Amino acid sequence: MGVAPLAVAMGDPAGIGPEVVAKAWAVREVHDLQPFFAIGDRRSIAAVWPGPITSISHPGAAVAVFPTAIPLLQVDDPGDIEPGSPNLAGARCALDSIELAVGLARSGAASGLVTGPVAKRLLHDIGFRHPGQTEFIAERCGVAAGNVAMMMVGPDLRTVPLTIHIPLAEVPAALTIDLILSRARTVVRGLQREFGIASPRLAVTGLNPHAGEEGMMGREEQDVIAPAIAQLRAEGVQVSGPHAADSLFHAGARAGYDAALCMYHDQALIPLKTLYFDEGVNMTLGLPILRTSPDHGTAFGIAGRGTASPRAMIAAIRLAGQCARARAAGPA
Amino acid sequence: MGVAPLAVAMGDPAGIGPEVVAKAWAVREVHDLQPFFAIGDRRSIAAVWPGPITSISHPGAAVAVFPTAIPLLQVDDPGDIEPGSPNLAGARCALDSIELAVGLARSGAASGLVTGPVAKRLLHDIGFRHPGQTEFIAERCGVAAGNVAMMMVGPDLRTVPLTIHIPLAEVPAALTIDLILSRARTVVRGLQREFGIASPRLAVTGLNPHAGEEGMMGREEQDVIAPAIAQLRAEGVQVSGPHAADSLFHAGARAGYDAALCMYHDQALIPLKTLYFDEGVNMTLGLPILRTSPDHGTAFGIAGRGTASPRAMIAAIRLAGQCARARAAGPA
Repeated sequence: MGVAPLAVAMGDPAGIGPEVVAKAWAVREVHDLQPFFAIGDRRSIAAVWPGPITSISHPGAAVAVFPTAIPLLQVDDPGDIEPGSPNLAGARCALDSIELAVGLARSGAASGLVTGPVAKRLLHDIGFRHPGQTEFIAERCGVAAGNVAMMMVGPDLRTVPLTIHIPLAEVPAALTIDLILSRARTVVRGLQREFGIASPRLAVTGLNPHAGEEGMMGREEQDVIAPAIAQLRAEGVQVSGPHAADSLFHAGARAGYDAALCMYHDQALIPLKTLYFDEGVNMTLGLPILRTSPDHGTAFGIAGRGTASPRAMIAAIRLAGQCARARAAGPA
Repeated sequence: MGVAPLAVAMGDPAGIGPEVVAKAWAVREVHDLQPFFAIGDRRSIAAVWPGPITSISHPGAAVAVFPTAIPLLQVDDPGDIEPGSPNLAGARCALDSIELAVGLARSGAASGLVTGPVAKRLLHDIGFRHPGQTEFIAERCGVAAGNVAMMMVGPDLRTVPLTIHIPLAEVPAALTIDLILSRARTVVRGLQREFGIASPRLAVTGLNPHAGEEGMMGREEQDVIAPAIAQLRAEGVQVSGPHAADSLFHAGARAGYDAALCMYHDQALIPLKTLYFDEGVNMTLGLPILRTSPDHGTAFGIAGRGTASPRAMIAAIRLAGQCARARAAGPA
């Protein structure tokens, strides 16, 4: 029996989510995409996409439909949604879609979950109290938010920020040996399970210029990062660093590791987006289920114009499919 | 009359400086390099390079020699120097070379100055008390070190770090409106004078993730960076920002500005070195003279083996020559 289809929660129905999902379906053969079904509001795709859509009532119907139409699992009808004009009913539709997708992935009816962009402010207005989709999904999976890792994935680069949406001034104090250990272990397990890499190689950045140059420009490398690396080595992890971050992301350096553990948001995101601006995928490690998402927002400003690039959504679906097959093939 | 030759101070004679200078000379025609003369110790090139070297006694002789041999201006003989084994006599030779090169550039006998890599620790041991070559050159030119700007230059990207060799934890407090204004003005003048760009476009990064997202992740954008940008605009500077740093360096974004003003070392250096690892040039703006240098160190570990890449030295000489010609052509 084949791998189950992927569940694609389309995100806010007034954003570019429905459009890029439809465009991804249109190139399913070129990109060898794993069969998927869309979850959300049928009219939000039909409004921006003239191609075939077939409503399904359960994921089991998706694989047969997929070659000829977008399989669509409808959530509660949000009423009329205008592309580019988000409202609370649309936010509810987006949230319902994620929740249903998580449930189907947990049950095994879907082999993984791809999430489209949502509007955090509107989710907040309907009572959503998580910082983002990731924390909500972690909670629904019974995993503490601190035990998941966000990994950014490009064609030949994977980066993991240790700290994410905090002011830069708070980064030094947020770095602890325990945080590095916990995140590194999550990343190693994730690379093994989702990517089939038996013995993953991690590269760890320094925090300071030139990785501190032996303490001359900051001591976090000696006090926090190097001891964590030593501990990971003692556990048998293949890990190098602390590396000067500016020299870790050129092509030659990238070939030397499977993932780079970075100290803060921009250290992980600058190299990824400089190289692969519109095809970056955000993958959540540490969950019982597979989850990817395109690294872009709702882009309400261009929604409904047909101009949104589907490259990141295609990359997110393709990666989820590859990982689902790696999981199905069993441990590396 | 043509533009005067460039002075190339070869750096530490036991490092890769002499080798990459010789290799750059060897490809002078392919890369259309401005005639230059090397300053340093003749034996340090002869030890790693079998080609022609002609000693000259003054810069005026360089242009005639350049087509057939490396014109070499000797400083005090440092005695026997073994590639890869630096010593104090070599450090003195490196310092003498820089000093002579600066003098010749100031006098107009050289149209600009290219400096090879030096060993800061050894310079310190012979009594050098400046943080680096740049501060020394600024002092010799009568310019306060705070009034020069380090610009990193790649084929289609120029970045300027506002703060450089300080711990990351000290960056937020080091950012002031005055610092941004002073550096931005230096960069605008430099782009006009050295690159012939009449009305340079600056892009300024934020400090925090997503440039703070309206203060949700840090306030430096609102308190420091945006007010500085407003002031620069009032002065007639074409300037945009604060930009989310992770989205500022992909090809499409790079086309939108002539230089990016970055808040700290890695924010400026990660994109440059990720894209152009071995061809980055460091250019000093704000001096009365032109000065470039390859963005690498002495690499004592590989000195004398013939394996050092000359790409950054070639790029540094080529850029200095282009700027010398732009200067000679007069204001844009």
